[in-house]
Amino acid sequence: MSKPRNLALLTDLYELTMAQSYFQHGMFAPATFSLFIRRYPEDRAYFVSAGLEEVLSYLESLRFTQEDLDYLSSTGIFAQEFLHYLSDLRFTGDVWAIPEGRLFFRDEPVLELTAPIIEAQIVETFIINQINLQSIVATKASRCLWAARGRPLMDFSLRRTQGIDAGMKVARASYIAGFRSTSNVLAGKVYGIPVAGTMAHSYVSSFESEIDAFRAFARSFPERSTLLIDTYDTIQGAHNAAVVGRELQALGQRFQGVRLDSGDMAQLSQEVRKILDEAGLQDASIFASGSLDEFELEDLLHRGAKIDAFGVGTKMGVSADAPWSDIAYKLVQYQGRPVLKLSQDKVSLPGEKQVHRFQDEHGNLSHDVIGLRDEGPPSGEPLLSQAMRKGKAIQPQPSLDEIRQTFADEFSRLPDGYKALRHPPTYPVDVSQSLQEMYHRIESGQSIEKIPTVVKGKKGKS
Amino acid sequence: MSKPRNLALLTDLYELTMAQSYFQHGMFAPATFSLFIRRYPEDRAYFVSAGLEEVLSYLESLRFTQEDLDYLSSTGIFAQEFLHYLSDLRFTGDVWAIPEGRLFFRDEPVLELTAPIIEAQIVETFIINQINLQSIVATKASRCLWAARGRPLMDFSLRRTQGIDAGMKVARASYIAGFRSTSNVLAGKVYGIPVAGTMAHSYVSSFESEIDAFRAFARSFPERSTLLIDTYDTIQGAHNAAVVGRELQALGQRFQGVRLDSGDMAQLSQEVRKILDEAGLQDASIFASGSLDEFELEDLLHRGAKIDAFGVGTKMGVSADAPWSDIAYKLVQYQGRPVLKLSQDKVSLPGEKQVHRFQDEHGNLSHDVIGLRDEGPPSGEPLLSQAMRKGKAIQPQPSLDEIRQTFADEFSRLPDGYKALRHPPTYPVDVSQSLQEMYHRIESGQSIEKIPTVVKGKKGKS
Repeated sequence: MSKPRNLALLTDLYELTMAQSYFQHGMFAPATFSLFIRRYPEDRAYFVSAGLEEVLSYLESLRFTQEDLDYLSSTGIFAQEFLHYLSDLRFTGDVWAIPEGRLFFRDEPVLELTAPIIEAQIVETFIINQINLQSIVATKASRCLWAARGRPLMDFSLRRTQGIDAGMKVARASYIAGFRSTSNVLAGKVYGIPVAGTMAHSYVSSFESEIDAFRAFARSFPERSTLLIDTYDTIQGAHNAAVVGRELQALGQRFQGVRLDSGDMAQLSQEVRKILDEAGLQDASIFASGSLDEFELEDLLHRGAKIDAFGVGTKMGVSADAPWSDIAYKLVQYQGRPVLKLSQDKVSLPGEKQVHRFQDEHGNLSHDVIGLRDEGPPSGEPLLSQAMRKGKAIQPQPSLDEIRQTFADEFSRLPDGYKALRHPPTYPVDVSQSLQEMYHRIESGQSIEKIPTVVKGKKGKS
Repeated sequence: MSKPRNLALLTDLYELTMAQSYFQHGMFAPATFSLFIRRYPEDRAYFVSAGLEEVLSYLESLRFTQEDLDYLSSTGIFAQEFLHYLSDLRFTGDVWAIPEGRLFFRDEPVLELTAPIIEAQIVETFIINQINLQSIVATKASRCLWAARGRPLMDFSLRRTQGIDAGMKVARASYIAGFRSTSNVLAGKVYGIPVAGTMAHSYVSSFESEIDAFRAFARSFPERSTLLIDTYDTIQGAHNAAVVGRELQALGQRFQGVRLDSGDMAQLSQEVRKILDEAGLQDASIFASGSLDEFELEDLLHRGAKIDAFGVGTKMGVSADAPWSDIAYKLVQYQGRPVLKLSQDKVSLPGEKQVHRFQDEHGNLSHDVIGLRDEGPPSGEPLLSQAMRKGKAIQPQPSLDEIRQTFADEFSRLPDGYKALRHPPTYPVDVSQSLQEMYHRIESGQSIEKIPTVVKGKKGKS
């Protein structure tokens, strides 16, 4: 997974047909595309930027193999001269982006890419795919962190993420957002994320009795046994675990604790805590998993759950209440001419842009302004920085731990109101005067151009 | 993507820690695990089996490389003897499964795997991941097909699927369910699925005017131009497209049609149809895309939309209203001893099983019975067939087109009531007498075994 793969064909067919048409019409001028999210999913007031590293790696390794070209040729759609052109194509453009781990808001360009239009067009699908996935998952994960009020979270999502790549990217994105570890061993190897895990029901069931299973596991991992106690009956399981915990103690070894995975875990955790404490196992921790998300975490803690750490899986890993975002990659400038799209409810902001972030006197985030990239000196902090120049990523790129720290720093400066799990207020994002003027200038210009030149439309608006 | 990758580490850490513990306790006996979905997501009454091919390919190629073992060793969790054992590990087990494209229902084992317990345990995560993703997406896609009432559907989801692997598997799963084509070019190459596409707003915006863009695209693809007409104003765009359509006609070429992507598409499609017809372009088709799913398709057609084909993207590609399933992989037999789990709301059925499907006198599906695999001769059709023997896939495996045909045949025999988009009734699934008896026998046996042997639990239930 860590080596660059050949993903040139992982694109929508129309990217390649449009590219052929650009080629045939001699359109090789630079185009700027802007990537942004048009709407908040319900209960969201911010997004966490994530996925840039994968995008840069993809852009650097983009090339069409002979096998790819043979396949394209076999479709009968493409001209040989165009396929020949593709055989030499490399990505040679520039990328500006809001760094991974930073917050961004609706309509703000999280990435802007400038390249000859064919290159800029072909890479659309992959860029949207990766930034969308990692950003929605990092955002979801940050909500779980917030709801857990400082308790450690582990990513348990791999078995139900939407595929292999998602399993890897969810581990990465949730780590950026502050998860402590992942169950995904390959993510541990590839990204260096700490790995963690407990035991499954199958382990318990494979022994004649629960306590046999607990003893066997404790013999294998005397210092790191978290015993799953709900295979048959949670309370009974807690008693069995306490027996084994005391046996470990008697040997001078550490009993890590128990795991709950079903039932009313707020109530069960209190009973289990008591059982462990009465057995002299005050240091043993209670770990919980099973259908958890930020809402469930909040509810459990609100109801006084005695749980020390959580495994958060499926609902975080698929961002269950917001499994996609209304993200778009729009042409905003071609051949030096700013452009925009006026489709109903799908308006885009023209030109090369920059986002400026402002803070209050305490250092907390107050508002953002979207402006033109070459507008005068900003009074706020410019968020987009250049990440790639002429097809080469700017070095050094931040490490995963640096990205994680970036998120932690900025999230701590976001006023808590915007972190509300339900119905947060909208973070203020303004559009600069210059950008507004450009928008209106183009809008009026375009409405003139769209008068039909031959057919007289009865219902046409001019 | 078509070559086997090294995915041995794409597993949860606990699979490997449990495996080490099995190893240390000399547990190499065969274990049978059963994969099933415990609950229907809202508005679902069936699932479409999909993902088996990938699972078989994974099992056949499973091996730990030296690099994998070095990483595992670096974690400090694993014993060297166990890592040495892993270096030679291959999957040697048997797999029974409900073939891809067939329908299955709640609690029915869609896959059962028997192998030495270490092998059977390690592969859990990957198997769940792949069958879950492809089955929920094939199911979602089948609902879109049903709602489209025979109109062709194209998979447009790649840009917002949850990652790369999902993009590939969604193309495959939606094709199984009857989608005609995909925009995903790599899926076209790898799976042989027909590819299709139109044009993007960026193409239109890159020209000085919309009609210039239409003419340029039509010159590049005179026989296959579907012109996107909503970049500025849909009605005006339809007039512009009509001009170009007549120009193509005048040259004796075929005008494929137009695409809507925003606004009230039921109403717009009627106006656009009229514009095209009045221009003598009765053969031009109207294609629509944009936030479509089965509910939106049903609504559009109910409101008299004049749309000939649809591009269905994000909401199908992430199964937006049901982005995960409550799928589980549970130990049901170890060393010849049937076992089960009694966790609250998470009960499993013990033993090696078979599902028998019954039909009525018209050949329509009537009900299923879950029984033991070795129960006497079935009166219904047995659904699980052996897909792998001793680590080798049974040959020949069905082609993707055969799987697609399997689905089409069976779906046509499912009574329409179960296809209702909202609140379908529950399909009848019974449990055989023998399986019920085994369940109760084990349940009572296990409740004796779970009495604690040392600590006297005050709240323990026996």
